[in-house]
Amino acid sequence: MKPSIPKGTRDFLPAQVYRREYIFGTVRRAFQLYGYQPIETPAMENLATLTGKYGEEGDKLLFKVLNNGDYLAKADQKALDERDSNGLVASISKRGLRYDLTVPFARYVVMHQNDLSFPFKRYAIQPVWRADRPQKGRYQEFYQCDADVVGSPSLVYEAELVRLFDVVFNELGLKVVIRLNNRKILAALAEVAGHSDKMMDITIAIDKLDKIGIEGVRRELDKRDIPAAAQDIIEKFLAVDSLDEFEPLVADSEIGREGLAELREVFDFIEAMSVTNRVTFDVKLARGLNYYTGAIFEVEVDLDAHPGVKMGSIASGGRYADLTGIFGMKDMPGVGISFGAERIYDVLEELELFPDSNPAQLTALIVCLDDETMATGFKLVNQLREAGINSDLYPTAAKLNKMLKYANQRDVPHVIIIGSEEAKSGVYSVKNMRAGEQVKLDLAGLISQLQS
Amino acid sequence: MKPSIPKGTRDFLPAQVYRREYIFGTVRRAFQLYGYQPIETPAMENLATLTGKYGEEGDKLLFKVLNNGDYLAKADQKALDERDSNGLVASISKRGLRYDLTVPFARYVVMHQNDLSFPFKRYAIQPVWRADRPQKGRYQEFYQCDADVVGSPSLVYEAELVRLFDVVFNELGLKVVIRLNNRKILAALAEVAGHSDKMMDITIAIDKLDKIGIEGVRRELDKRDIPAAAQDIIEKFLAVDSLDEFEPLVADSEIGREGLAELREVFDFIEAMSVTNRVTFDVKLARGLNYYTGAIFEVEVDLDAHPGVKMGSIASGGRYADLTGIFGMKDMPGVGISFGAERIYDVLEELELFPDSNPAQLTALIVCLDDETMATGFKLVNQLREAGINSDLYPTAAKLNKMLKYANQRDVPHVIIIGSEEAKSGVYSVKNMRAGEQVKLDLAGLISQLQS
Repeated sequence: MKPSIPKGTRDFLPAQVYRREYIFGTVRRAFQLYGYQPIETPAMENLATLTGKYGEEGDKLLFKVLNNGDYLAKADQKALDERDSNGLVASISKRGLRYDLTVPFARYVVMHQNDLSFPFKRYAIQPVWRADRPQKGRYQEFYQCDADVVGSPSLVYEAELVRLFDVVFNELGLKVVIRLNNRKILAALAEVAGHSDKMMDITIAIDKLDKIGIEGVRRELDKRDIPAAAQDIIEKFLAVDSLDEFEPLVADSEIGREGLAELREVFDFIEAMSVTNRVTFDVKLARGLNYYTGAIFEVEVDLDAHPGVKMGSIASGGRYADLTGIFGMKDMPGVGISFGAERIYDVLEELELFPDSNPAQLTALIVCLDDETMATGFKLVNQLREAGINSDLYPTAAKLNKMLKYANQRDVPHVIIIGSEEAKSGVYSVKNMRAGEQVKLDLAGLISQLQS
Repeated sequence: MKPSIPKGTRDFLPAQVYRREYIFGTVRRAFQLYGYQPIETPAMENLATLTGKYGEEGDKLLFKVLNNGDYLAKADQKALDERDSNGLVASISKRGLRYDLTVPFARYVVMHQNDLSFPFKRYAIQPVWRADRPQKGRYQEFYQCDADVVGSPSLVYEAELVRLFDVVFNELGLKVVIRLNNRKILAALAEVAGHSDKMMDITIAIDKLDKIGIEGVRRELDKRDIPAAAQDIIEKFLAVDSLDEFEPLVADSEIGREGLAELREVFDFIEAMSVTNRVTFDVKLARGLNYYTGAIFEVEVDLDAHPGVKMGSIASGGRYADLTGIFGMKDMPGVGISFGAERIYDVLEELELFPDSNPAQLTALIVCLDDETMATGFKLVNQLREAGINSDLYPTAAKLNKMLKYANQRDVPHVIIIGSEEAKSGVYSVKNMRAGEQVKLDLAGLISQLQS
């Protein structure tokens, strides 16, 4: 039997784990710096918690866990007889794998509300599972990195989260553009155009502006029965690229004035911080058919700094009026962001922005040229480890070439070679595997060299 | 609808995540110090990879993931008609959740053998899932922390892993006893007693010595049809407590001499290291019905240092002759250990050995007494964050008592209070929430105070 893993899942080699941890660690440190606290939820949720929260399409993509024991005994016998796969699920599967980190977070806030103090700032870096058709860059098991603050309507947090994007991508060496909009502006656009009922249709159409141009957007609006007069107003909105130009357009819309005031306050806060990446207002930004009600964020690679990178949004977020209503708890507004770790990985790899080494990797490998020197090697590896140096010992005496090849495969920067002379003198040959040169050092010299 | 989570699973509050990460981080750093490299495998494995690897009981405890789409269309129709839950599984579920980290590791080594260099030292700290009946201290989702080295028979690794136990528990402030045995000694015992075929029966019986005494063990052996003469020999083995006393007992058994020589070599290596916890030879140690073939380890809390702690083994391990044979790849011996993170958590909590705070936690909370000082607070929180201090700002001006209560709930050690005077002077009131005292500091003084 030739073993394999499920389609859409991945094994990671050590070098990949180091690189993934470089991203997670950077994000985690920034979350902590900004006062977000870690929580964890189980991989398995009750299916009732997940079902109906992601639309009909989402329900199909949930991984359901089969009940244990004699699950058919308690199954819906009618659904069984009719071979009704959908109808049977609820009776043979009580649990499912989490689909995102947001619904479990909402459940968590409701269940633990008495143990939490609000505003509650949490982060979570955990895998999620979706039964999507596997394809390049899309996996059935992948990580999400989310930070949210709930229990406060303060716009301070919008600005803070923009700065958090900024800090993380600076740390990763990636120049980005942070786009900002507000759902209230989109609502005002629909209102001013006389089609408040068609806000979704309008936002879906204008979302495509960059791809299909203004004429394309008008054709889309035609298809959705939005008349030319309304299209003219929409076109005016799309031509705006500063908040000031925007003012007359929303003067007659209460929600529009509100959205504009919020955006201005957020930009004022942002100006009071040393944000180094470009932050732009983008009226087209809609973030699909989701639950956002206020600010919306989206981060993309800055193509001026990194030309040719083809990757959509690498981080995003927004404000929502009501996180926990689905679980019967009212008045829990919040704002949150999410880093697309898998896409960020691909971009850093493409641009060769990963650091050469990781502090967790091996620093030194000791190799012994004959059996008699193994005891010296064993002693030395323990001394190095006691000095806090990540070290290893090749477990038997062997041909130098073979051991150096092993050192290369393990990507270790220093090899310490022990022959009978070194064992006697206590002065070791240290080969720098990157530079190729070799020096002689005693224990103290070796430790200070390897610790630096 | 009142939300809940599946029985046997857990949510973790921030304080619990910090404590868990304290354990995982300590174990991870020690693994890295000793040259072990991280790998990751997916939560879902093909069910064919898992089935049959854990015995019949284990198969029942596997969580199976239901196939997506119209799974009944491809189901075993006969099993469906007969309501045969067991018989149906394979046809409606291709995937399962991993049950431990060892079988996925074996699969990984086989699949990636060309990308790995041997000896391959890997660690993994990941959750596993078992459909055990939930009860106190037993969960359906829990973490395992494993380190293994495969591809070498060298006993250097046995000693290294003993020292690794030692380093980790020293770091955690827990005194332990590390018990050592060798499966070959148990084989010799059965052989010398004339019942090589009953090695399992014998080891199961002697494993109970501490609980039921030698008379109890003899009664157990009676039940298993092991005659009095053999019982006398077994009793002699059990009376041994040094390797030297052991020598005459195994003089006539080749496997016994081998086991004794291995134990001596391992103890010699251990003596060459500065192991600080007690390491004892224990002929009774058997580690149940598993695949070990050489050294066996078990770690328990040292009751001399920590009287009254009732907890079984908190870490364990052993050598196996053949990791990958189940997947058709021969000659892959190895030795590995596993830390019982959930039990270690309970012990550290009982003994109050967790550190008071975690470097990842919030260091300072800024609170503003009126709306006019919020801008100063916002500026200050950004300055502190830029100085690398984990900081947060209460998002609105509010009553001091309310904000101090929030600070207490978030367990933050320093609160910086900004009123109109502080905003004007740039000299802030800093309240130490542990000591209760309050001092006045300017920005530079504040940063140096909080960084220390």
